[in-house]
Amino acid sequence: MRAEIIAIGSELLSPWRLDTNSLFVTEQLNKAGIRVWRKTIVGDRFADLRQVFSSALERAEIVICIGGLGPTQDDITREVVADVLGRRLCMNDEVLAQLEKRYARISVAMTPNNRQQAMVPEGAEVLANPNGTAPGLFLTYENHLVFLLPGPPHELKPMVTNHVMGLIRQRHLAPPLVYRHLRIASEGESKVDYLVSPVYKSYPDVETTILASGGIVDLLFYWVGQDTDERSGPVLAELTSRVREVLGESVFSERGESLEEATGALLRQRGKTVATAESCTGGLIGKLITDVPGSSAYYRGGMITYSNDSKASWLDVSREMLSQWGAVSAQVAEAMAERVRGLAGADFGLSATGIAGPEGGTPEKPVGLVYIGLADAKGSESRKLSLPGDREAVRLRTARMALDWLRRRLL
Amino acid sequence: MRAEIIAIGSELLSPWRLDTNSLFVTEQLNKAGIRVWRKTIVGDRFADLRQVFSSALERAEIVICIGGLGPTQDDITREVVADVLGRRLCMNDEVLAQLEKRYARISVAMTPNNRQQAMVPEGAEVLANPNGTAPGLFLTYENHLVFLLPGPPHELKPMVTNHVMGLIRQRHLAPPLVYRHLRIASEGESKVDYLVSPVYKSYPDVETTILASGGIVDLLFYWVGQDTDERSGPVLAELTSRVREVLGESVFSERGESLEEATGALLRQRGKTVATAESCTGGLIGKLITDVPGSSAYYRGGMITYSNDSKASWLDVSREMLSQWGAVSAQVAEAMAERVRGLAGADFGLSATGIAGPEGGTPEKPVGLVYIGLADAKGSESRKLSLPGDREAVRLRTARMALDWLRRRLL
Repeated sequence: MRAEIIAIGSELLSPWRLDTNSLFVTEQLNKAGIRVWRKTIVGDRFADLRQVFSSALERAEIVICIGGLGPTQDDITREVVADVLGRRLCMNDEVLAQLEKRYARISVAMTPNNRQQAMVPEGAEVLANPNGTAPGLFLTYENHLVFLLPGPPHELKPMVTNHVMGLIRQRHLAPPLVYRHLRIASEGESKVDYLVSPVYKSYPDVETTILASGGIVDLLFYWVGQDTDERSGPVLAELTSRVREVLGESVFSERGESLEEATGALLRQRGKTVATAESCTGGLIGKLITDVPGSSAYYRGGMITYSNDSKASWLDVSREMLSQWGAVSAQVAEAMAERVRGLAGADFGLSATGIAGPEGGTPEKPVGLVYIGLADAKGSESRKLSLPGDREAVRLRTARMALDWLRRRLL
Repeated sequence: MRAEIIAIGSELLSPWRLDTNSLFVTEQLNKAGIRVWRKTIVGDRFADLRQVFSSALERAEIVICIGGLGPTQDDITREVVADVLGRRLCMNDEVLAQLEKRYARISVAMTPNNRQQAMVPEGAEVLANPNGTAPGLFLTYENHLVFLLPGPPHELKPMVTNHVMGLIRQRHLAPPLVYRHLRIASEGESKVDYLVSPVYKSYPDVETTILASGGIVDLLFYWVGQDTDERSGPVLAELTSRVREVLGESVFSERGESLEEATGALLRQRGKTVATAESCTGGLIGKLITDVPGSSAYYRGGMITYSNDSKASWLDVSREMLSQWGAVSAQVAEAMAERVRGLAGADFGLSATGIAGPEGGTPEKPVGLVYIGLADAKGSESRKLSLPGDREAVRLRTARMALDWLRRRLL
């Protein structure tokens, strides 16, 4: 069962925009056992889109077109698809009535080109769009399923979940893709591969993918063997447990959750709280912690002490310590963690101070040198990191290493 | 002059990864006057890639293949391209010697499959890769230019800048795309379009694109007329100035910089400083400010007061105020901004308190209700926002609205 995704819009061929919708669509299709075989990004030109759509139809059972359903002259998806499939475009009264209602509700006068959105290829099923004007469309053609979906993510996503997947499952009962997804923190991609490849190489029915980004390594084991129902479960369970043995505590998730979620869940389970004191990360650790809804249960707040002054006056880090060791030092990292823990009345204090670059490095303290600190009732500790990459990479890795340290402490 | 980009790798067809390299490549091509007409994302399958590559060659003068040049069996780009172009793959001694040196330097034994990276299609020019093992390759075929580039961004980007663009410019002298790029904060996409469309519609030689994301609207005016050298400059200057007249202070950039950079540059110019007090944004405002290198010159630090306790004890917001008005109120936003300004000895205090969701909303204070506060020597003010979208969107828009308020105050 093959699917292809066509993302339509000249802005997606500019240096300014990426098609991100296809990730969500792919995830949903994978859950229904369908793989995406190709993605094409094409501009708002009739002949181009015509060629892309008709050749996708030759290869794939499911073709999903995203974008180009709006009211402007650039929006050509309906016309192209009707042309390729040999269908007439007809005014759909139901869609027109909904459009009129919607425009009335937002007090906008409906212009003739808005009516274009109610033109529907013959035989198409209309997919309601409660979050926008352009409805989605579903067509069958020989043994193919064709979906035309709106581009704005908040319109697309509910349409995929509420309509598209049901229509696909009705017609194509495929077993879902079976896979395991391990997430690993504070280890590099090549080290992870070095450690786990002797294990996964002895599983010929499993396809392994290793991805790394921002200090997190994702390890994906897809079942590609026969007898999925009987064998995939036990084999993947065995592989996963052998891999976990090799990787130990660095595995923080088997269900796709983020490091922040995994750390937050542990804090909640243990009834513990944390406060942060950040220098080089400038609020990023707090931002990541509070990305998780409900984090107020365990996050006691933080100080962004970006200057020596604020370290001294807010966190009471002594001027002597700052001048003797420098703001980027083990001593200061530990003091920051300890003091913010006390000020917040938290169980843990977490800190980071370092040189994120591109300026500010010296031979003794180069860009990428970071100290992170962790304090609890027993005292404080620090770790020295030497991180590669640009400012953004150094800051993100620092924040993740700090959170991961806290996570491991909670195990 | 048409270019197509082919991004190769089955992981790019998973729900986990996007091709982002093509944005950088597109930007560089645009600077040389070349537009990207299509992007295709294809897996590591010989027949698929063969079909994609050969059909791209029928349409585009420049075909850029990214990925699939490594040492594993999945890396098939070299073979496919050699096959389509009818070239033999030969061992390149120079590349092999470089590979051997590189593997020796990182003390890794070179296995036979590593040698695969030195197999080069006849007639190809080798593009040095100082940041990885796989070199880039450049081939000409009839009137087509074909580039094979490595997938890791830190290998790809210098290769494009140092080699690819020079080779293209040698052969295809096209005038660079001429455009203007205005960035707008604190206004919605449809309002911007409503305000500026009467202006840009009277410029037939200019193609306008409007993009919106995370509270920022990007307005792009591409010159598509004749006599580029003589007319594009004055016409675009006139259009830009008329659009700025309509949009007023909401335009924060004409050079592509971020809102954080624009706000930071104004603080620096005026010799002013800022401190932050964040509740619902949890550190995001501080993170954005410190995304800018050198922000220590004007950022005095911040407090992440995510709980009532920390608002009371760190910022001395009175318990009476918190219980009378609630943490999400104009009063508390103003108090937070005022107190952090005082504690930090900064010229400005900037604050945010609100309900980011998905939980925590009430009929009186629904998800998306946010107050931002701004304090200076004359006193403090607050603004009430009602923001659409999910937790991430509410937090990002809040942070950007707060920064933009500060920016406008500095004008």
